[in-house]
Amino acid sequence: MAEALTSEAILAATEEVLRRYGPAKATVVDVAKALGVSHGSVYRHFATKAALREAVTRRWLDAQHAAMEPAFDQGFTAAEMLRAWLQKLFDRKRHSHVEEPELFATYLVLVRESRAIPEFHIEHLVGQLARIIRAGVDTQEFVTDDVRKTALAVWDATDRFHHPAHAQEWADPHIQDAFDAVVSLVIAGLRYNRIPSAAGDA
Amino acid sequence: MAEALTSEAILAATEEVLRRYGPAKATVVDVAKALGVSHGSVYRHFATKAALREAVTRRWLDAQHAAMEPAFDQGFTAAEMLRAWLQKLFDRKRHSHVEEPELFATYLVLVRESRAIPEFHIEHLVGQLARIIRAGVDTQEFVTDDVRKTALAVWDATDRFHHPAHAQEWADPHIQDAFDAVVSLVIAGLRYNRIPSAAGDA
Repeated sequence: MAEALTSEAILAATEEVLRRYGPAKATVVDVAKALGVSHGSVYRHFATKAALREAVTRRWLDAQHAAMEPAFDQGFTAAEMLRAWLQKLFDRKRHSHVEEPELFATYLVLVRESRAIPEFHIEHLVGQLARIIRAGVDTQEFVTDDVRKTALAVWDATDRFHHPAHAQEWADPHIQDAFDAVVSLVIAGLRYNRIPSAAGDA
Repeated sequence: MAEALTSEAILAATEEVLRRYGPAKATVVDVAKALGVSHGSVYRHFATKAALREAVTRRWLDAQHAAMEPAFDQGFTAAEMLRAWLQKLFDRKRHSHVEEPELFATYLVLVRESRAIPEFHIEHLVGQLARIIRAGVDTQEFVTDDVRKTALAVWDATDRFHHPAHAQEWADPHIQDAFDAVVSLVIAGLRYNRIPSAAGDA
C-alpha cells in the first residue's frame, strides 16, 4: 500500500484489531498487517504500543463525550435535563455492557491502562454535569455554593449506574427503580443543598 | 479432648483457621486439628464445609450489625444520626480494608460464597437506615412517602463508601471530602424528597 498512511487510518485499524483479538492479544504487527504496511510505518505515527492504545482510547472517549454533550433546551427544567443526562449515561453504559460485553471489557482494560485516562474521562463528564447544575443555579432551581463540588457529589452518588465495578448489577430487573429513586433523591438534594464548609455541620 | 464440643467452639476455631490459612486453603480437617478432635466430630455440628463457612460468616455479620445498631438519642436530629451512622459504616469498612486487608478479603470471599448472605447483610443495614429515616419522618425533619424505598436510595447513593468494589478508593486523601459532599446532598434530598410514583416526573 503506497498511499499516505494517516494517523486516523491507523487508529481505525487498531480499533478493529482490538475488537477482533481483544486487548491482551492485539499487537502492532496485527495493526500493520490489517493496513498492509510494515510495523515500522505504524511506529512512525505512534512511538510506542502504549501511545497507540492510549490514542485509540482517547478517540473512543471523545466520541462518548460528544454523544453525552448536554442539550440546553429552554423548554426543560434543570432537573429534567439532569435526569435525562444521567439516564442517557446509564442507558449507554448498560447497553454497551449487556449488548457488547467484549467491547465493553476491551475498553475497560484500555481505560485503566493509563492513570491519566480515567481522570480525563471523569473530569469531562463531571464538567458536563457541572454545566447542567450551573444552569439550575442560574434559574434558581438548584441551590449550591460550589457547583464543581456538587457535580462531583452527584457523580459519586450515582456511581452504581455508571461505574463499571457495578456492571453486573445492571441486568437486575429492579435496577431502573433503583436509578429513579437515587436520581429523585439527588435532585431533591440539589433543590435544597448546602454543602457544609466545616465538618460537624450535619 | 473428651469435653463436650460446642458449635460455638467450632465457629471460633473456624474463624481462627480462616484468618491463618485464608479462605482458599482452610479445611474442616484444619478446624478439627485446631480443636484436637476428629473431623467427624465437626461434621456432627455442621453437615458440610459450606454450612460451617456460612455459619461463621453469619456470626461475624451479626457482630457487625450489632456494632452498627443506631442509637436513638433525643439530643440528635435525624440528619445527625444518619450522618453519624454512615460515617461509622464507612470508618469501619475503611479501617478493616486498610488495617486488616487479609481479613477483609477473607470475609469478602465468604460473604460472596452464598447468594443469601449478601442479601441478608444488605437487608439488615438498610433496615437500620430505614429506622433512622422513619425517626426523621416522625419528627417532620424528613419527607418521604416510602421509607423503605428511600432507605434503599440512600444505601445506593452512598455505595462508594461501603461497597467493597470501591475499597481501593478509600485510601484517596480526598475521600472524606467526597463522603461529606454526598452525605450532605443525600440529607438535603431527604428534607425535600418525593420519589415520583410514575416515571416521567423529573
